[in-house]
Amino acid sequence: MHAAPAFTLSGRDLLGIEGLSAGEILGLLDLAEEFVELNRQIEKKRTTLRGRTQINLFFEASTRTQSSFEIAGKRLGADVMNMSVASSSVKKGETLIDTAITLNAMHPDILVVRHHASGAVALLARKVDCCVVNAGDGAHEHPTQALLDALTIRRNKGRIQGLTVAICGDVLHSRVARSNILLLNALGAKVRVVAPSTLLPAGVESLGVEVFRTMEAGLEGADIVMMLRLQRERMAGSFIPSVKEYFHYFGLDEAKLRLAAPDALVMHPGPMNRGVEIDSSVADGAQSLIREQVEMGVAVRMAVLDTLARKLPNA
Amino acid sequence: MHAAPAFTLSGRDLLGIEGLSAGEILGLLDLAEEFVELNRQIEKKRTTLRGRTQINLFFEASTRTQSSFEIAGKRLGADVMNMSVASSSVKKGETLIDTAITLNAMHPDILVVRHHASGAVALLARKVDCCVVNAGDGAHEHPTQALLDALTIRRNKGRIQGLTVAICGDVLHSRVARSNILLLNALGAKVRVVAPSTLLPAGVESLGVEVFRTMEAGLEGADIVMMLRLQRERMAGSFIPSVKEYFHYFGLDEAKLRLAAPDALVMHPGPMNRGVEIDSSVADGAQSLIREQVEMGVAVRMAVLDTLARKLPNA
Amino acid sequence: MHAAPAFTLSGRDLLGIEGLSAGEILGLLDLAEEFVELNRQIEKKRTTLRGRTQINLFFEASTRTQSSFEIAGKRLGADVMNMSVASSSVKKGETLIDTAITLNAMHPDILVVRHHASGAVALLARKVDCCVVNAGDGAHEHPTQALLDALTIRRNKGRIQGLTVAICGDVLHSRVARSNILLLNALGAKVRVVAPSTLLPAGVESLGVEVFRTMEAGLEGADIVMMLRLQRERMAGSFIPSVKEYFHYFGLDEAKLRLAAPDALVMHPGPMNRGVEIDSSVADGAQSLIREQVEMGVAVRMAVLDTLARKLPNA
Repeated sequence: MHAAPAFTLSGRDLLGIEGLSAGEILGLLDLAEEFVELNRQIEKKRTTLRGRTQINLFFEASTRTQSSFEIAGKRLGADVMNMSVASSSVKKGETLIDTAITLNAMHPDILVVRHHASGAVALLARKVDCCVVNAGDGAHEHPTQALLDALTIRRNKGRIQGLTVAICGDVLHSRVARSNILLLNALGAKVRVVAPSTLLPAGVESLGVEVFRTMEAGLEGADIVMMLRLQRERMAGSFIPSVKEYFHYFGLDEAKLRLAAPDALVMHPGPMNRGVEIDSSVADGAQSLIREQVEMGVAVRMAVLDTLARKLPNA
Repeated sequence: MHAAPAFTLSGRDLLGIEGLSAGEILGLLDLAEEFVELNRQIEKKRTTLRGRTQINLFFEASTRTQSSFEIAGKRLGADVMNMSVASSSVKKGETLIDTAITLNAMHPDILVVRHHASGAVALLARKVDCCVVNAGDGAHEHPTQALLDALTIRRNKGRIQGLTVAICGDVLHSRVARSNILLLNALGAKVRVVAPSTLLPAGVESLGVEVFRTMEAGLEGADIVMMLRLQRERMAGSFIPSVKEYFHYFGLDEAKLRLAAPDALVMHPGPMNRGVEIDSSVADGAQSLIREQVEMGVAVRMAVLDTLARKLPNA
Repeated sequence: MHAAPAFTLSGRDLLGIEGLSAGEILGLLDLAEEFVELNRQIEKKRTTLRGRTQINLFFEASTRTQSSFEIAGKRLGADVMNMSVASSSVKKGETLIDTAITLNAMHPDILVVRHHASGAVALLARKVDCCVVNAGDGAHEHPTQALLDALTIRRNKGRIQGLTVAICGDVLHSRVARSNILLLNALGAKVRVVAPSTLLPAGVESLGVEVFRTMEAGLEGADIVMMLRLQRERMAGSFIPSVKEYFHYFGLDEAKLRLAAPDALVMHPGPMNRGVEIDSSVADGAQSLIREQVEMGVAVRMAVLDTLARKLPNA
């Protein structure tokens, strides 16, 4: 960790997997491996971001993503400030852009932003001088989730190229699915999506995936079974099967998992709805990588923050 | 403060006073004395926990306990992260255990947990690899409160052994009462509880206390009068005397205090309901230790964090 | 920045502009200039407040003021703790004074307080041992806002003395107006207030301002046009013109701005109600200083914290 890594990103921001080259993705994963080791030490502090200000601006609540970015920034030595929407001027009628411009004037170095509207983070990034990291925008992208998933897969399978990855469930509302499809395709995996028609975005085939409408067909021979959270809070007004029915057809249990490759591994971005999209026996079973995904999340975010910070002027 | 203290705890966690030996309790109090001195300096920073991550996971709001742990951790140099329940995945239906496992995967070193259910903190501690400190679980235990109370008493009376301590009020709902009874008994005090029958847990005598149902009888000759907060928010459905009646019979005012020993001292864990369980003239009077309790709280928590951190592998 | 500045304040607290001499105000502005430069560096960290504890106690939510104080404290090396009212004991019925005494017992060095009641911060300051900074109390004072406004004016006009400053809009509910009037008068500006009669405090002339009831008259020849936020949330029960009418008569648009001096500059404390008290074309136009005000805010607060901290015993 002592020599400055040669790796760099071409852009100032990380707004999505879209636009990243395979080389950039692999560079981030390689750097993240070093932080995995660091985080397993007792002394986890680096001074890379000392004197830098990181603001986590979350317009949607999130346990794991915000915590993960907060821990990542603090371990790198940054001053981290959380801005919760509940206590912000947004309630007083201030616009997203005014909020961005206001924060920008305080000279942060890195802004980590989650927003419920697709494209809001990119819009905000055009208004500020600092690095922006997209921590999830609407149903658009969640790039650090895709990076941590890729790191988890690579550590367990030794590679990503050539693997068959089945992404299952609520693909329609999922920025996680979208970012993963882009990343996995960039690294040469074969990507399937498995969902009922009502939970598939129109024209999903154009993203370069094979579409399956039953778990039986979609899981056959899969190396990785990536379950998605059923986003019940985003489903107002749309047709939803009952939770019991959903679990029957699309919930991952031991029987369905046996349809995948014998050494298939199971993933979930969390938080899980146990008994809805995934059975506890699978979530906590020997083939599950779910805990490791969270661990990789901190390491990947440290890699992203570290890489972007090195692009700051005079850094 | 330069030589590493020889004192250590037998366990990895601090889940309660139950199970601590008198030696362990006294060791923590002795170490806390050093932090009392440190906190009175202008430069209050230590590097003991540098590079360590402390997460305060509070399922119940709390001004003083959470602030006290946050200040304690920061003064020792830890990276401290607060997790508020309102913005957490618990609202999305995630279980306590999933939350614990998620946080654990981020490699915290210390988890400080408050939860409304008795036993929840011990359950959580079994699922994680880091040190866990119970910051209050239901009506079960609140060990750092009992430690700070003991430190306050010892500094003012010179000892704990042989003192008569009257714990008065809502014993039924009070984890503070329970932890104090265990600690004071371990150190050889004579413990009384004073409450109306409806606010006494069944079988409280078996904890080794003398039970009184009137303040007149219970306060007679007491060295320490420890008032409890009337937990009105936990009393839905149970019989409650009116606040006015409660104050008349069980509120501590100057007249009732005169029944105790002439040099009796008054304590309250806060926040106080003035005019309900305690009169302002007593709370702010010369015999009150209430401000000092808060000060001792930071010192005791620094002692606990410091002691647990020294048990971390490679520390 | 290496030699300790000779400048000091006469008091231990910063409760308002009232009571500050012109020399004290200018001393703070001069020191703030140094922090403006620092904040434009990548490495923004100082160790002036290392080992000091700063608590931000906000009884009213505020994006920019709280963030600004938090960033200011962290850049100076303090341990900063935010206390949100929502999760505080205030909900459990604890009084303001008990909250203050409790926090004081934790030995903070600086308490930054915002409260909805005029005078509450001064009351609190009398109960604690540490430095107190008023971050806005009711309709009374908001001294750091006036200081940042003065710094912004001085950097753009080269002076404050002799300038004509028109403060426009909801003067009645505005602590910003009050602090600005006091400061601008102390430094020799000519201050006007421009508002409908219903939004003017009784006897405002006694503060040493010229009163205008139309924008046409009030803006004529003004060097600085300082717009106030229409505090609709504080207007329950009072007469309010419709927003459309208000904008027509008192909203600042390009036509009204042409009545001021040709090189007039526009200010707003934020958050703005665009289309209510200010038009977007003016807010984002070439004469606007609104972004710079936010930047000056962090610098001014660093100057205040730094100056007060140097008054701490043994510092």
